[in-house]
Amino acid sequence: MTRGVSPASHVCHAPVIVKRPGKIGNCPNPADYIANAPQIRRAVLDRLRGQSVLSAALFDKDLLTELAKFAAYLQLKRFEVGTAMSDKIMAAAFFEPSTRTRLSFESAMLHLGGKTISVADGKTTGVAKGESMRDIGQMFNSYADVVVVRHTEQAALSEMCEYLRVPLINGGNGSDEHPTQALADWYALLKWRPEITFGRLPEEFRLNIGIIGTPGNMRTVKSFLMLALLFHENINRITIFSEMADPLGEELRELTKNSPITIGFSQSLTQNLEYLDVIYMNAIAYIGDGYRFFADAFSLSSESRIKPDTVILHPLARGVELDVSLDDTPHNLYFNQADGAVWIRQALLLAIFGRVADVVPPDMLDNEPLPNT
Amino acid sequence: MTRGVSPASHVCHAPVIVKRPGKIGNCPNPADYIANAPQIRRAVLDRLRGQSVLSAALFDKDLLTELAKFAAYLQLKRFEVGTAMSDKIMAAAFFEPSTRTRLSFESAMLHLGGKTISVADGKTTGVAKGESMRDIGQMFNSYADVVVVRHTEQAALSEMCEYLRVPLINGGNGSDEHPTQALADWYALLKWRPEITFGRLPEEFRLNIGIIGTPGNMRTVKSFLMLALLFHENINRITIFSEMADPLGEELRELTKNSPITIGFSQSLTQNLEYLDVIYMNAIAYIGDGYRFFADAFSLSSESRIKPDTVILHPLARGVELDVSLDDTPHNLYFNQADGAVWIRQALLLAIFGRVADVVPPDMLDNEPLPNT
Amino acid sequence: MTRGVSPASHVCHAPVIVKRPGKIGNCPNPADYIANAPQIRRAVLDRLRGQSVLSAALFDKDLLTELAKFAAYLQLKRFEVGTAMSDKIMAAAFFEPSTRTRLSFESAMLHLGGKTISVADGKTTGVAKGESMRDIGQMFNSYADVVVVRHTEQAALSEMCEYLRVPLINGGNGSDEHPTQALADWYALLKWRPEITFGRLPEEFRLNIGIIGTPGNMRTVKSFLMLALLFHENINRITIFSEMADPLGEELRELTKNSPITIGFSQSLTQNLEYLDVIYMNAIAYIGDGYRFFADAFSLSSESRIKPDTVILHPLARGVELDVSLDDTPHNLYFNQADGAVWIRQALLLAIFGRVADVVPPDMLDNEPLPNT
Repeated sequence: MTRGVSPASHVCHAPVIVKRPGKIGNCPNPADYIANAPQIRRAVLDRLRGQSVLSAALFDKDLLTELAKFAAYLQLKRFEVGTAMSDKIMAAAFFEPSTRTRLSFESAMLHLGGKTISVADGKTTGVAKGESMRDIGQMFNSYADVVVVRHTEQAALSEMCEYLRVPLINGGNGSDEHPTQALADWYALLKWRPEITFGRLPEEFRLNIGIIGTPGNMRTVKSFLMLALLFHENINRITIFSEMADPLGEELRELTKNSPITIGFSQSLTQNLEYLDVIYMNAIAYIGDGYRFFADAFSLSSESRIKPDTVILHPLARGVELDVSLDDTPHNLYFNQADGAVWIRQALLLAIFGRVADVVPPDMLDNEPLPNT
Repeated sequence: MTRGVSPASHVCHAPVIVKRPGKIGNCPNPADYIANAPQIRRAVLDRLRGQSVLSAALFDKDLLTELAKFAAYLQLKRFEVGTAMSDKIMAAAFFEPSTRTRLSFESAMLHLGGKTISVADGKTTGVAKGESMRDIGQMFNSYADVVVVRHTEQAALSEMCEYLRVPLINGGNGSDEHPTQALADWYALLKWRPEITFGRLPEEFRLNIGIIGTPGNMRTVKSFLMLALLFHENINRITIFSEMADPLGEELRELTKNSPITIGFSQSLTQNLEYLDVIYMNAIAYIGDGYRFFADAFSLSSESRIKPDTVILHPLARGVELDVSLDDTPHNLYFNQADGAVWIRQALLLAIFGRVADVVPPDMLDNEPLPNT
Repeated sequence: MTRGVSPASHVCHAPVIVKRPGKIGNCPNPADYIANAPQIRRAVLDRLRGQSVLSAALFDKDLLTELAKFAAYLQLKRFEVGTAMSDKIMAAAFFEPSTRTRLSFESAMLHLGGKTISVADGKTTGVAKGESMRDIGQMFNSYADVVVVRHTEQAALSEMCEYLRVPLINGGNGSDEHPTQALADWYALLKWRPEITFGRLPEEFRLNIGIIGTPGNMRTVKSFLMLALLFHENINRITIFSEMADPLGEELRELTKNSPITIGFSQSLTQNLEYLDVIYMNAIAYIGDGYRFFADAFSLSSESRIKPDTVILHPLARGVELDVSLDDTPHNLYFNQADGAVWIRQALLLAIFGRVADVVPPDMLDNEPLPNT
């Protein structure tokens, strides 16, 4: 046998091996979440069938709980989903550029065997020529079975819905909402403390949440706050850290005033750090017609006096407000939050297409109908 | 059994449901078109096997008829096509940005189980560095089985073909042609009036078509006009509404002078509206080295004195020339035209790859060879 | 039977058929390469399993030989690979725009049944907002199973690896390296002269290679030169044609000084042409913070006094330095080099994912373990 290659061949340089790191930060096990209620309530998730997701207000506690359970199973790779969406096309229409949200949705759809078409940059579209969002909505009817949209304008999405016959998912619209980011945020928190859904925390352990930012004009914190209201039984207080006079704005003021959760305001993060169990940070706010960096006054690092078991969320990309010294600490739930986004979005897509029962084995499915209301 | 979720949980806000609209405008049934000649003539479509589509001049009446029938079956989802192209890759090379045409082709290819690679913006390519179209054509040999190209330069596509060994489809080249847009235009008209293909209209019902624009330098109307000549038996007159001295240009003047169809010219749309059965509008013309909006003088709205059964075509995106008040009227064939584009492009791709017989059931296939000529 | 279409229908213009060309240039048969050692040494390719590819220094002669053999089989379509990667997602993250490398990798992945997500333009990403490459690396953990990256900064890739848990492939980083381009270069040369791997050329036939460019700051020639050192038994001399004082730079000077290959320098290409068997050209160099065209002084055309059996390599896109008059000559190995890139990248991806044995039939697989070292 000749091989022509001498095993003793002169090697000019030792092959360079790149070391790959392990996971860092706080990585709660999805299995802990589903342990509380293993079966998936089909009738609850079926409420999403054919639905557009414009606002976090689409979700109530039941729906968010079942969606998070479904996501946990997907993350644990318990279900066969590789061809579940093979006949479906998702359009990712990002008229405002974004990498994380677009790639996350595309990755979610591809994981499910679906297909994707994309607009990565609004400047390459008819929008640049002054086309109306309504006509753009009509366009997607022919091309896709679901459309994920990001846009700088708050009104763009509802305008798009006027002629759009397939479900639309809000991937962030101006200063309004980012509902699937909020799903990812709460998916991380629910895995971290399953009791938020599945129990009632003793009064002294009810959560104190700090939000750094102005929910009234920052879409991620707005949607996050709206979902927080669903878990009022286990949240003691939400403190908003902002330099603005009216960080809530009218819509959220209306929503929060009916909530049993105490909403507080502060301009001093450092003085309140020792009370906070969850800190939600954000880098930028969309104000008027552009983005403003929002971080200077409120920054955290491993030097900050955070409680040992406090977790930090951040939708990323981050600026200087969130120091890398926190990355390799248990406070870092933000990487887990990012990792989970792709799974909760898979769960959402499967539910919108009514394919829950196609991928969940029958014995894992609770087929009880919804109670009459 | 514990579920941990109280059905009576406090809901802070009623879940928001977004209403989705139905179809609007004129939506002829594809079934009416194929009722006239149900079998697909394989030998006719096989003429497209391995062909590049640079010009509408590739098509004669037989070929367009069979392609439209094939598209109608695909639109009606009568054939299994989900994996028909699973071994093929389509490159969408849009050196001039476009959303509609690119997404429509990508969606068509994905519907057929094929794969896509894309250049959505010429500024991110070697073209920006001054690379020749010939070399770019050679590049695609290695990456794709078919290439759809849009370019600002008329000559770019034929230059690209010099080294390209796979079929090329013209997705719009400068002021020259946009042949697959014309296929979509006529696919809509043929579904609307199957007699255009399958009969001979009484003289008083032969169509009067109005084209708003200058076919000599607007690619969509040029390709549309070239296909119109194929149906001379059922077209009485084509009137071109333009402010330019020579709206046809030399090439089209040559083509049209041999046609039995009367070609007329006018600068007054309003005075001629009552005679028109079909009105083709367009928003922009490519003149010299840039686009010029072309709409001001010739606009239509629901106030315009259009005949009750007249249909309007528009390749979209539209400007002010086509008022939204027409959307919810039977004059609106432009949305149907957009919806049909993805199906006629699927038919075209299948024919180019010689896969007609793979997806059409044997009893629907007419295998008679072409008559000797 | 009525068909409604008259075969004698008036045709206004003869359908236009676009001629498609055949292959041009030097196209060595991949079968000639594998004839020397038909079996694929699994243990050698398994060294790539899970590896990141940052530098050409990852490869030794054995690994490059087996990879090229594997690619040759793939190019000859001897193995079934259409679904080999159906559960894998590749992210193509091109923070510096590129068409060839991105489309080539995407095409390779799609050929293997894998999926792709892409950033075609760094300006549409968080990088524009100042996000660190480390965070971007973390982001891809959630979305992809392998990441191909191009970036203007040399340091970007190693920074990205700090948090990245999936393999990273360098698609060109600033003035540093472009290792998979070098794989494509050598794949073309090995097919052209299989003796480079599988034999020992008589002294008078050992290759004289000319490199036009400055390996010290041109990534393609740097990686090409690093792989050239692996074949010192069959290379006599490498002459570097450059106007710069120190075209090698410190790192390559260190590497080359231990090689038995003579490294020479010259500023006159024309005087040395008659000695060269292989000429490697390049259009541009990344110097400082931008690209500089590098071709003026050193150009080749069919008028140049090249030996009849000399071959030219060029990573393309080309500028004026490589005249089109050479395209249709046997000197043109650059088109073959481009065509082969997609196959060697398929081989690389399959090896990184440890799927060699999944696609190579058992009788073609040499399962002998690596010798102990």
